[in-house]
Amino acid sequence: MSITPSVRAFVEQQSVGVLATSGPDGRVRQSVVYFALQGDELLISTLADRQKARDVERTGWASLCLHGEAPPFPSATLAGPASIRRKEIGPGTAAVMGRIMGAQEPPEPQSDEALAGVGRVLLVIDVDRVGPTLYID
Amino acid sequence: MSITPSVRAFVEQQSVGVLATSGPDGRVRQSVVYFALQGDELLISTLADRQKARDVERTGWASLCLHGEAPPFPSATLAGPASIRRKEIGPGTAAVMGRIMGAQEPPEPQSDEALAGVGRVLLVIDVDRVGPTLYID
Repeated sequence: MSITPSVRAFVEQQSVGVLATSGPDGRVRQSVVYFALQGDELLISTLADRQKARDVERTGWASLCLHGEAPPFPSATLAGPASIRRKEIGPGTAAVMGRIMGAQEPPEPQSDEALAGVGRVLLVIDVDRVGPTLYID
Repeated sequence: MSITPSVRAFVEQQSVGVLATSGPDGRVRQSVVYFALQGDELLISTLADRQKARDVERTGWASLCLHGEAPPFPSATLAGPASIRRKEIGPGTAAVMGRIMGAQEPPEPQSDEALAGVGRVLLVIDVDRVGPTLYID
């Protein structure tokens, strides 16, 4: 799918979102994460042994919900097939780190070997559902 | 369980949170909701035919994730057994409506019959898991 320009602009304005995955017991799990949107992929940098990474490897699905900070609280929920990526993740990881640091430019990308050495992986959501979106347009 | 005073104070400062439930296909669903915390119960006013209400009736579980609006983005995730309540929901519904309106005092409670007439129910989470909480204490 393609994310509409107004939703894309809203998503890019937000610093963090709430990631939801399904645990082994079928119950939802949530946590607050930084992210970067590249094309129709949401990129989240995490560690391979985190519950969110294991949930995604087991279920292949994740959802990210973003909202503004003041009434009427505009929001967007982006969801889709998700996977844990370990190869060619330097630039994407740097893009997320740049957002965490609030930098104008992302830091220099690290090699896959360096990232693997600290257990860092990229959780990638291939967005194919957007909604509900409120008060954006 | 009991919610610690510092988490309770943080939760009460937030206007909205991200509710997560599990859909019939086992995939997570999220939406932004207003809520009220009364004791260890999270109250969310919704309509009986909304997906979130049907998910809770089917699965008996929900999670709410709250975060602050500025770095370092303090957050709390509260989850537990959840149900849809239709009886004696006037005061709880009024408490949530008061928060939606930003009122000092909640509005006058409506009768269960009046609320049923417009399809309004109370989604109640009996909080028994709190975490992760970041940067609150």
